[in-house]
Formats: sequence, structure tokens, C-alpha cells
Amino acid sequence: MRDDSPDFGTADSQITIDIDAITGNWRMLDSRNGDATETAAVVKADGYGLGAATLAPCLADAGCRTFFVMSLAEAVTIRRTLDHAGHSETRIFTLSGCHPGQEDDFQTFRINPVINTIEQLRRLAASGRAWNAAIHVDTGMTRLGLDRAEMDDLKAIMNHPGDDGRNALGGISPCLLMSHLTASEDPHDKASAHQLAAFTELRDMFPGIPASLGNSGGTLLGGKYRFDMTRPGIALYGLHPAGIGAEGSQMDQAAALTPAVTWQARILQHRAALAGDAVGYNGTHVLDRDSRIATVGVGYADGYPRSLGNRAQVEIAGHLAPVVGRVSMDSITIDVTDIEADKVDAAGYATLLGPAYGLAQMAHDAGTIGYEILTQLGQRPKRFFKGGQTRQTGA
Amino acid sequence: MRDDSPDFGTADSQITIDIDAITGNWRMLDSRNGDATETAAVVKADGYGLGAATLAPCLADAGCRTFFVMSLAEAVTIRRTLDHAGHSETRIFTLSGCHPGQEDDFQTFRINPVINTIEQLRRLAASGRAWNAAIHVDTGMTRLGLDRAEMDDLKAIMNHPGDDGRNALGGISPCLLMSHLTASEDPHDKASAHQLAAFTELRDMFPGIPASLGNSGGTLLGGKYRFDMTRPGIALYGLHPAGIGAEGSQMDQAAALTPAVTWQARILQHRAALAGDAVGYNGTHVLDRDSRIATVGVGYADGYPRSLGNRAQVEIAGHLAPVVGRVSMDSITIDVTDIEADKVDAAGYATLLGPAYGLAQMAHDAGTIGYEILTQLGQRPKRFFKGGQTRQTGA
Repeated sequence: MRDDSPDFGTADSQITIDIDAITGNWRMLDSRNGDATETAAVVKADGYGLGAATLAPCLADAGCRTFFVMSLAEAVTIRRTLDHAGHSETRIFTLSGCHPGQEDDFQTFRINPVINTIEQLRRLAASGRAWNAAIHVDTGMTRLGLDRAEMDDLKAIMNHPGDDGRNALGGISPCLLMSHLTASEDPHDKASAHQLAAFTELRDMFPGIPASLGNSGGTLLGGKYRFDMTRPGIALYGLHPAGIGAEGSQMDQAAALTPAVTWQARILQHRAALAGDAVGYNGTHVLDRDSRIATVGVGYADGYPRSLGNRAQVEIAGHLAPVVGRVSMDSITIDVTDIEADKVDAAGYATLLGPAYGLAQMAHDAGTIGYEILTQLGQRPKRFFKGGQTRQTGA
Repeated sequence: MRDDSPDFGTADSQITIDIDAITGNWRMLDSRNGDATETAAVVKADGYGLGAATLAPCLADAGCRTFFVMSLAEAVTIRRTLDHAGHSETRIFTLSGCHPGQEDDFQTFRINPVINTIEQLRRLAASGRAWNAAIHVDTGMTRLGLDRAEMDDLKAIMNHPGDDGRNALGGISPCLLMSHLTASEDPHDKASAHQLAAFTELRDMFPGIPASLGNSGGTLLGGKYRFDMTRPGIALYGLHPAGIGAEGSQMDQAAALTPAVTWQARILQHRAALAGDAVGYNGTHVLDRDSRIATVGVGYADGYPRSLGNRAQVEIAGHLAPVVGRVSMDSITIDVTDIEADKVDAAGYATLLGPAYGLAQMAHDAGTIGYEILTQLGQRPKRFFKGGQTRQTGA
């Protein structure tokens, strides 16, 4: 076994998460943003599958003051871990919004709602409570955020004095105006420019209120896309949003991001097979020579996409080798005929994600995007966090 | 809201797992097997994603005495929950095998190793301990289990008297001879018959030792495929292994299985959009009429496959409606124009998996198999177990 060989323990695969890579990526993006633009961190979906409760305090240590999650449940988890780590000053926005019955928890856990609808706005305004809320406006994605008619409603509400002489926003103090880019990773898509223009125009309705448009792609676009805050997600975790399609200046941007994930799995069996033998379910790969097959302890139940069958490669003992046959629930089969047998045995494991075969390539081979790979990483692999020492003991 | 409307609480989607459906499926398969064939339960990959720690004791209550998991970590979890539930008599087999350094835990937690390689066999034989082990032989899958050369080694070992006059298996008492079918769900694939013949022949080497060949597909094939034990997995969870491709007698088999999963998600926003508006990332769906879009709080981070974008349907207020645009990390967008607006608002949620749109159909639309859908269900959805009352309080 080599010095960096993983200790699988009772598991068959291990995911190593490099905390310093993630905080380093945040610092790099924050540095690019400059002093006039706050850099938030999107840690929804359990920090893109990598462990938000561990990562959020480390990002706060690095200087991050604003976090975005999706659901209230996620927000409560992050609030607890941030408070425990001495970062009670941080803000946590919940992109899903504040749904009926959730108002008490939002107040108790000091969560900032992202208001997507007029129904939410009216309900919170009438709640008799104080809310520092984001107003989310749609600028061309047709997903979340106030639509055209609702923007007209909002204008009417803001221009209509309430009982106390203030406008009908009641207890709502808008603290952020935000929208979301639909194709910020694609320099050829005109949607970004259209959304930028629409957002800039809407912003005039909210004088003095900080504005935010950019996700990772928008952060990397820079310039006018920065506004007062950007909200990077995938880039924090080391992947350029363009994935394997990065081109031009995106290549340099991608190179400046440090991958955060290494995934290694135990070789369960290293076996001989004959020309003509079929490998794996339904015999989708038939060997054309006498071969050696390494069966590796990771499968689609671990988050290794089934679509990688007969498509991906893994690294064993410094050599890339192909996945042959279907991905099983708990294992994959690798043709290691071209690697010396004793090197395979000495290694004892395969690297599924690492320097030799990265996330962008895996996503491309699986016919998806790296975001889905990360967020689908399973619970069965052993998780090992490296770096971020000051936090790992305290959190 | 209807009477069966879910309580999402702080989450945005809920997965309901019907314990009685799963135990009922086990009983049905066990009844088909007859008295001469034991019916085990495969609860690897956290019970196909549905919660092995909850389900295993319920299956033991139903009469199951033998469980199969993949890794030692899974085995330890199941041993603890079974012992806690008063089922310490159960056997737990670990398909991954017993790897170097794991021997103590196997003994401590009373786990039965599945021996896949001669290396494992020799190591356990020489360990000075007693092992009730399964011998896994490959009969045509080229994945796990002794290969041809290793079977010759095994014959030599079994015919060679050890120091104590017994054969060189040492402390190993083989308690199960097993192999695994590669295409048991496909009645047109000749692999099953070939594997049956090969396994029947190999069995002569192990007189008096119980034999097991059938997974769910093999259990349903019945007849000669039964041997002394079958090991159903996916069928327990309500899915026929042939999925949407079930044909002939498989249709009746599929109808006899009770689906175990319902998945519902909150409607986060119900909005107007205009003809020509693009929906979701990269504008892959453009509306051809003025429309209403329901944005639903589930995405690929929850295990809703990204490949379902522009392909799946969901049920809202008794109507099926199409997913339009890409699946986002945390949400999907549904064209609900053909459902009355007040019905959408009154419902408040969409059913992603249920009677109107089942697992086999979802898997087909996603270009995968139901096994991957189930095992990729995320941790973010709220989990609700129904039925199995005697266990839910005690486990």
C-alpha cells in the first residue's frame, strides 16, 4: 500500500473532502470580487453533498458572513453549527421561502427568508413580526421569484401607505434584492445579458437595498454582474460551472479552482477471466482477450452513476483503466489487464475521482453535470475531512 | 389540503415508506418459495435506500432469518438493530467479503462472511477462529465469487487434509454455497439457464451444504432456481426486476408486489408565464402558450434524477402534469396550465412517485432502473415510515 492509501475501515470506499481547498476557493472568489462586493456561500443540499455542517463554520472562519440554503431544515442545521462555532453574527437565507407554519422557526433560529411570492410577502408583512428578508425577482428563468404580475403587485404595495404611515410591507425590511442567472456558464447564451439588463432596471425600485445576481457563473463573469453580493456555490467546491465545456478565459478560471473531492474504493477481488466471458449484469461487455478484472467496492448506491458503465475510467497504481460492464448497486468491474498484476494487488484500491480523472470528466462521461455527481454522493462511503483543523475539533 | 396531504414540516419533500408493503412482499415471496426454500432478505445499500435499520427488524418479525448486506459497516448497523429488537438469532451475510483487518469485527458482531476469493479463504482458514461462511462462486457474471482457477484451488484445499486431519479449510464451516444471476429479469436471455447448469454442477462439490442462486429475478423464476434459499432484494421494495419491461407472467408477478414508496413535494410557487418564456436552466423548454408553472421543492440533490427534465410527470390534485425544463438541484418546474388554478393552490403539493406515476415508469423515463432511483433517494427529504407499528416504537 502506498503512503496515501486510504483506510477504508468497515466501509468499501472513502470520500476525502479537502476543507482548505473549499475555503481557498472562497477566498479566491472573494478576492476577485473586490471590497465593494460581498461574497456569500451557497451551502444548500448539504454543501453540495460535501457536508454543510462541517464546511459552513470553516467558511465563516475564512470571512464569509452570508450563507444560502434551500429549506428551513437546512437552515436550522447551519444556524446551529455556526452558532456553536462562535459565528452567530452570520446571516442564513432560505431560498425555498418561508412557508405557512414555519414563521416561528424562522424567528427562533434567526433565518432570513427569501420571498418568492406575493402570498409570502403579504403573510410575513401581516405577521406582526420583524423580517430582514430578501426579495427574489424572476428575470427570465420562470422558476422562483416574483413574476411580472407580482412585481406590479409589489409596486402597488410599496407605494401604498400602511396603517402606521409606513408602506404596506409592514414588518418586512428588504435587506437584499436578488435574481438568478439561467445560463451564466455559457458565454454564447444571450440570456445573461438580458437578465442583467432586466435586473438593473428592477433595482431602481429598491434604492439603497443591496442587490445580488450572480451565482458561480455570475461571480466568474465579474464586472457588472457583481452588484453588492455574489452567491457562488459549485465553484467553492472546486468545479467550474462550465465543466468540461470551459473555453477561453474559463480555462484559466477553472485552473484557479482547487478540486475538493477525492474518492477511492477498495478492490474487492482481482480475478482472471477468459476471452468471450461477459462482465456484469446482462453481459453488456464481452472480453475480447484473456483478461484480469478488478471488482471495486463502489456502485450506484454510493452515488457512482449507473450511466458510467462501459464509459468511465478509474486510476489504479498510477494507471487509468476502464470500467467494463454495467455499474452494479455496490460494485464496478475494471479491466486491469494492462496493469501489472502485482501492482494492482499492491495498490488494493482504485481512485474514482482524483487528479487523473476529475469531476468535470466524470460528469461528462455520465451525461450529466458535476453538480449532480456531488449532490448524489451517497451516505455509505466513509467521509474523511482533511484540513480546516481549527474547526474539525470544535464543530 | 386533502386528508392524505403530507406534513412537510421544515422540509420541502417527504418520502413515505410503507413497512407493511415490504413485509407483505417478503411474505408473498416466502409463500411462493414453499417450505423447502428459505427466503432471505437483501437489505444492502441501506435497504435499497429505504432504511435498513428500520426495515430489518420488521422483516425479522415477519419471519425472515437471514439478511444480506454489502459492507461490514452495513452489517454492524443491522446486527445492532436486530439484536436490539430481540432478533439475535438472525444471520447477516456480508457480500463484500471479510477484508484484512476486519476479522475481529466479524467475530464481535457475529457476521457471516461471504468468501469471494481464495485469499480470503486462506486467511480465514488460518485465523484460528471459527467461521460460518458462504462460499460465493462465479457462474458467468465475472464480478464477484471464485473464478475458474480459484475453484480448482478450492478443490485442492478441500481434498487436502490439514494438520488436525480435517481438510485445509481450517476453521471455516461452509454454511452456504451461492452464486448470482446476471440477467434473471430477462426471459429471453440464455444466461440464466447456463448459470443454473453451472451452479448445479458445482453444487456436487459441497454435499449437504445449502445452496442459493436466486436474487429477486431468480426467486420469481422459481422452480429449479430456488435451491435451499433465495435472496430477494428489489422485489421486497415493491418493484419487479423487469421494471416497465415486464411481460407475460411477469405482469402478474409485478401486480402481486405492493409498491413501498410514495414521494410528495411542496409547491413552492404557482406562477404565471407568457408564451415565449423559457423555463429553467438554459431555457430548454419554451412555452408555446400563456401558462401557469408550479415550482416544486425537489431536485436532483434529493435524488430526483436530472435526466427527468422535460420527460417526467407528477400528479397534482388528481391530474398528471409534465415536468418542463431542466431539473434543478432543489426544484422542478411543472406545467399546470391544464389543471384549474384553485385546485393547484388547494393541493399545495405534487406527488412525484405514487399510484399515478410509479417507480418503473420513472426509471424508464430517467433512462435507468428503479434500483438506482431508490438507492439514490436523498437524505434531505423528510422520511415517514407507516405501518410496522410494533417495531417503530421499539426499534
